[in-house]
Amino acid sequence: MKINNTPFRTIWLHPEDEHIVQIIDQRHLPHHFVIADLRTLEDFEVAIRDMLVRGAPLIGSAAAYGMYVAALQFAASPNFYEKMGESAVRLKATRPTAVNLAYAVDRVLMLVGSLAGLVPTPRDGSGQSRTTQVEIAEQIAKIRQAASDITEESVAHCRSIGEHGLKLIEAIHNRKLKQALPSSVDRQPSTVNILTHCNAGWLACIDHGTATAPIYAAHDQGIPVHVWVDETRPRNQGASLTAFELKEHGVPHTVIADNTGGHLMQHGLVDMVIVGTDRTTRTGDVANKIGTYLKALAAADNGVPFYVAVPSSSIDWSLHNGLTDIPIEQRDATEVHFINGLDEKSGEVREVRLTPQGSPAANYAFDVTPARLVTGLITERGICEASEQGLLGLFEEQSNS
Amino acid sequence: MKINNTPFRTIWLHPEDEHIVQIIDQRHLPHHFVIADLRTLEDFEVAIRDMLVRGAPLIGSAAAYGMYVAALQFAASPNFYEKMGESAVRLKATRPTAVNLAYAVDRVLMLVGSLAGLVPTPRDGSGQSRTTQVEIAEQIAKIRQAASDITEESVAHCRSIGEHGLKLIEAIHNRKLKQALPSSVDRQPSTVNILTHCNAGWLACIDHGTATAPIYAAHDQGIPVHVWVDETRPRNQGASLTAFELKEHGVPHTVIADNTGGHLMQHGLVDMVIVGTDRTTRTGDVANKIGTYLKALAAADNGVPFYVAVPSSSIDWSLHNGLTDIPIEQRDATEVHFINGLDEKSGEVREVRLTPQGSPAANYAFDVTPARLVTGLITERGICEASEQGLLGLFEEQSNS
Repeated sequence: MKINNTPFRTIWLHPEDEHIVQIIDQRHLPHHFVIADLRTLEDFEVAIRDMLVRGAPLIGSAAAYGMYVAALQFAASPNFYEKMGESAVRLKATRPTAVNLAYAVDRVLMLVGSLAGLVPTPRDGSGQSRTTQVEIAEQIAKIRQAASDITEESVAHCRSIGEHGLKLIEAIHNRKLKQALPSSVDRQPSTVNILTHCNAGWLACIDHGTATAPIYAAHDQGIPVHVWVDETRPRNQGASLTAFELKEHGVPHTVIADNTGGHLMQHGLVDMVIVGTDRTTRTGDVANKIGTYLKALAAADNGVPFYVAVPSSSIDWSLHNGLTDIPIEQRDATEVHFINGLDEKSGEVREVRLTPQGSPAANYAFDVTPARLVTGLITERGICEASEQGLLGLFEEQSNS
Repeated sequence: MKINNTPFRTIWLHPEDEHIVQIIDQRHLPHHFVIADLRTLEDFEVAIRDMLVRGAPLIGSAAAYGMYVAALQFAASPNFYEKMGESAVRLKATRPTAVNLAYAVDRVLMLVGSLAGLVPTPRDGSGQSRTTQVEIAEQIAKIRQAASDITEESVAHCRSIGEHGLKLIEAIHNRKLKQALPSSVDRQPSTVNILTHCNAGWLACIDHGTATAPIYAAHDQGIPVHVWVDETRPRNQGASLTAFELKEHGVPHTVIADNTGGHLMQHGLVDMVIVGTDRTTRTGDVANKIGTYLKALAAADNGVPFYVAVPSSSIDWSLHNGLTDIPIEQRDATEVHFINGLDEKSGEVREVRLTPQGSPAANYAFDVTPARLVTGLITERGICEASEQGLLGLFEEQSNS
């Protein structure tokens, strides 16, 4: 997608040095646009844990590239395979809730393991032979290819989610066109008002986004859409990232406090909700940014359709009960105590304290929306009911998993 | 209640000059404690509109004192009664949602009107006679008394709400004592975990608070309570004010993002919700700070009791349908775009921007929780069902209103 009319992705190899991975450091958005170079495994650990990159699909891709950079870093180590195993453990420990991270790391690790089987470790303890070094170089190329494949698949899945979700928006638009109800806000009566929470936009992915993919698809086709953007405390991904990317792409939107969605739905100002997910169970329970559950309750109470955009990489086929089985990350309380924003006088981004000294805070990062509150899941293979039956209808190969 | 061990109210007459009303300027809390002097009607308009004082009971009391200061200001005017009428209109226009404001102003205005009937306006256009001036001085004393009465009644109502609500907390505590369930957080198993939204504490009132009155009463009796304090975007009254006053009074509490309450309730970490109200209909629909409705939905979905502390001054007996009839204030979008906090480096409170330049924002200040989601109303006369029947059981005199 575009920033200031230049096409960008969220992660890419340095065009002049393929030992370096580049990312948009999202901590500085929307106030400053900063590109960061990641050169070591440690860089990737920091980037994922401290949320320079975030969003389930993007951290999956970043973790895969983290394995690639680790392979470069440990290429000359006599314990290359051991180091790769350790790197996988370290990367998986950076964020616990999103399942894409573990999937991507395991996929690379399996590749490394299968390659390891082909290359016997030297037994003399003298380090690797020249031949082994050459083979490791070949393996690194394969790991790089795997990271690239994971990334391109993610882009393709987002594009497909956009195409499937577009039909839902189109149907609402056509219904409103027929009804031609006067809008209580200053927009065309047939504008489709979509509420989203957090950032499941292209900044959370590689391109297109998950929840935003249908929105961009509709907008690009000329269907009038307007997005209510939940601010999304405590890290404000909505106000910082979703608003930024919608603005850069020219999609009409309005930032609101997280408290506002229920009121808007009570007054007919929301036609549908689309959110992303960090992990969805095989039964359709949806872990997503904290507060998603509250919007799902309000949608159900007001008959507003509530959709979740779910690339299959975010489905955890091993889990049946989201409420009991999905680990919910508790992040540092400082994210509640402090907030970053632009000091317009100095042009600098500053951190200010919101709470009294001496008041404790808690920071649960995700919640789980039970499948019963979800109207449908938008996957890369189509839209289905939020249930095991619904998901297996699209992903039959998981029936025996 | 106490701040740094010194007893305070939120509004009082200057101890050395009764022409001046003093308030705590709540915009600076929790970082700085600032007392402001209000000397003119204009000072009161600004204080209420810009939320130096806020909270339904406090703005009722402030409006009454605003009428008192207006009376002082216009005492020498040949059009004293006209000016008082204009002052009433101006004060009532400062905030539209809380009904206490209109009640307090009208009560003073009726007093002025009844006094006006006793005092014929001079007909020669030469200004008021010496006798009239003396009489106006007497009237000002009566207006001052009315403002004081409104204030003392409010304090008494809050105290009664505390006594009634205390029984609810005590019952939960006793039940938990019997069950002696291990707590999943680091507190006594019998601790009563109460979630509250916004600030319906003593800072929103004169003393005790409404939603907090039962909490302070329980704490002071030695019942272990712990309060989940919703941050309450966009103005952060929870993080700024509720956390501050609980901390100053020594009540255990934890600040959370507004998004968090649903997750806590899903996991059994909330025993009850108590909130305040800006206006409640005779049918028990509750207008309160935006986001209250979302917590009521989560409470209903998880079987958590949801109580509203309602002094009768916040009941609008003329309204039957909260969703259609209560005017919902839309405040300036800058409250969403910007946030104030303490720059710990400089010790100064700074405003920082949260949203991208060019992204619009909307700022609905209140929402309405339908009576069906409310477990009970805690009034100064006791606890009742959130319904016309329930309320009239306690306020029989309103049957024919």
